Amino acid sequence: MKKVAVVGYGNTKFTKDELPIESLLLESTKQVFDTTRNLSQDLVDGVLVSTNDNSKYLAAILSELSGIKPKVSHTVEHLCSSGTSAIISGYSYIASGLVDTVLITGADKIGNPGQILEWDKSRGEFNHPIFWASLFTKAHKKQFGTTEEELAIVSAKNHKQAMDNPNAYSHNPYTISEIMNSKYVTSDLRVLDCCYPCSGSSSVLLTSEELARKFTDEPIWISGIGQKTNSASFTKNELTTLSSSKLAVNNAYNMAKITPQEIDVAEIHDAFSVCELMAVEDLNLTEKNTSAAFVRNLFNTEDRKINPRGGLIGAGHPLGATGISQIIEVTQQLQNKAKKRQISNVKKGLVHNMSAAATSSSVLILEQ
Amino acid sequence: MKKVAVVGYGNTKFTKDELPIESLLLESTKQVFDTTRNLSQDLVDGVLVSTNDNSKYLAAILSELSGIKPKVSHTVEHLCSSGTSAIISGYSYIASGLVDTVLITGADKIGNPGQILEWDKSRGEFNHPIFWASLFTKAHKKQFGTTEEELAIVSAKNHKQAMDNPNAYSHNPYTISEIMNSKYVTSDLRVLDCCYPCSGSSSVLLTSEELARKFTDEPIWISGIGQKTNSASFTKNELTTLSSSKLAVNNAYNMAKITPQEIDVAEIHDAFSVCELMAVEDLNLTEKNTSAAFVRNLFNTEDRKINPRGGLIGAGHPLGATGISQIIEVTQQLQNKAKKRQISNVKKGLVHNMSAAATSSSVLILEQ
Repeated sequence: MKKVAVVGYGNTKFTKDELPIESLLLESTKQVFDTTRNLSQDLVDGVLVSTNDNSKYLAAILSELSGIKPKVSHTVEHLCSSGTSAIISGYSYIASGLVDTVLITGADKIGNPGQILEWDKSRGEFNHPIFWASLFTKAHKKQFGTTEEELAIVSAKNHKQAMDNPNAYSHNPYTISEIMNSKYVTSDLRVLDCCYPCSGSSSVLLTSEELARKFTDEPIWISGIGQKTNSASFTKNELTTLSSSKLAVNNAYNMAKITPQEIDVAEIHDAFSVCELMAVEDLNLTEKNTSAAFVRNLFNTEDRKINPRGGLIGAGHPLGATGISQIIEVTQQLQNKAKKRQISNVKKGLVHNMSAAATSSSVLILEQ
Repeated sequence: MKKVAVVGYGNTKFTKDELPIESLLLESTKQVFDTTRNLSQDLVDGVLVSTNDNSKYLAAILSELSGIKPKVSHTVEHLCSSGTSAIISGYSYIASGLVDTVLITGADKIGNPGQILEWDKSRGEFNHPIFWASLFTKAHKKQFGTTEEELAIVSAKNHKQAMDNPNAYSHNPYTISEIMNSKYVTSDLRVLDCCYPCSGSSSVLLTSEELARKFTDEPIWISGIGQKTNSASFTKNELTTLSSSKLAVNNAYNMAKITPQEIDVAEIHDAFSVCELMAVEDLNLTEKNTSAAFVRNLFNTEDRKINPRGGLIGAGHPLGATGISQIIEVTQQLQNKAKKRQISNVKKGLVHNMSAAATSSSVLILEQ
């Protein structure tokens, strides 16, 4: 299989502004052109748009707006993991040899795809992500004795880390006490346990090994990929485990031929605070039944290993942009360009992005 | 690059029925399972949905409904060429080695994506496909002296050929005179020059060379691929040529290492009758300025070489299904399984699928 690298990127600020989807897509795309060496429109032979917006033909419209005449262009949608789905699709176009260089731009505006998941009729009145997050939280408390404080630490850590991310939605360093006193949205979930829906856009440029050093001296290689879509029905044991993430991460580690102990930085899909506790165990970044102590230690020692840009809880969650923004953070960490967020001596990073109560997961491993 | 084959397929009837998108997707998917040797759910490691529907997460929902737990799953949208875009994406996943077997299911319900293209604000009041089709028709008449009868022959031929397609929307053998007397929708376009919006679903199963003969004795190989997205702005000369199709087809012929003279059957994107006249020249299936005579000769000799299933004009155009349905027709022709529609001695076939005034085109070459 041909090697594929991340060689450029662009990010907008994540905000509550109601911006046209086309403007969002164009803003992060323009940054890629402004900051990537030797990049011109004629070198981009694929344009993939990742979004949950209802507008059609956005990849062609973005191409038109940015002066690109690509071979491949289309929109990719897979709810909250649209971004990594599009990146892995871009990877496959390059690895197959069909094209050399693909721009992947993700964006959503606040309110996409709508708070009520009308498409998920099977959930009856429980048609909002806070309901599955609430089920997960209740089950986690029951099975592991997880406390409200332990949940609040996830949110406090990620809000604090978002302070050093200029693009983050939140720049409010909520304390554990503020989080524990924020209002309940269900009997098990508080508003500061939840990520922020928002508007935002993120872009990455992928290319082949042959072209990578034309665009950068520091290409970051995608060495491992794992994806899984599981049943949308929960069994009792699945309420405390992200089963699709477990299957996806094993494939990613195997493909990259590394062990979890080698991961120096991880972007985790903390749509709700309980998700980070579940994910660090299911991705084998800490042992089973140690997640709360693991995250508490990160918080107390100011170790940014998990969600250095602030996660979805601190940075916000514009669905189609999130997975791409996660890839950018790990790329910047591997390039030693993460400024105030920089972790020392980063060699290998992981991105975990999931959809709809972890019924789908994507995991990518990136390396210098 | 690894070889990729079409090894299974399923098609619903194209109708005016208002059916739920999930039911449409499931019906053609079920046919793939019912008719493909040795196929079980655990062998499908990619599920791509091609649609213009606004529902989200349909690839995961289709997976759930049909008992598949894939690695890769997401929706692909690129307006009228969503179907071939998804197939080429499926091809790249297999050719890259990421997965072995991908189900691609396309569907749209009547009314998708809506008659008024709200997304295309730049076209002002001309926000409907009949306006660009009308511009194309007027320019073709002016430049080549194309007559109303010559346009009507395209529609008469394709309606006639659709009579032998049990899944076609139209089973009405309109005569040239009936078509020429159908009502004008613009000053240059009559209603029977236009394809039918409708509900429908089509699925194909793609797999690698290693697995192809597990599923069928007659795998059909995708030997050539070309895609291009061009500017959405027209220049004067572009009103009588499908410039993105010309660029795409050259790449497809080059990849397959064949000449246009070797094509035995072609599925052409005849969204409007003028499109077939433009396409047969731009795909080099006949010489420049001979398209009207070429199509008249096919009609008079009952030669089904172009659009044997009836094209979009006769079979209907459920956007996300169209490109997949075209691939199925060429596959059946190559397998000598097209029944009443069968052309003799078919060795190589071509599919041409495009979007939005040919601002994007996909071309695939298929071979035994």
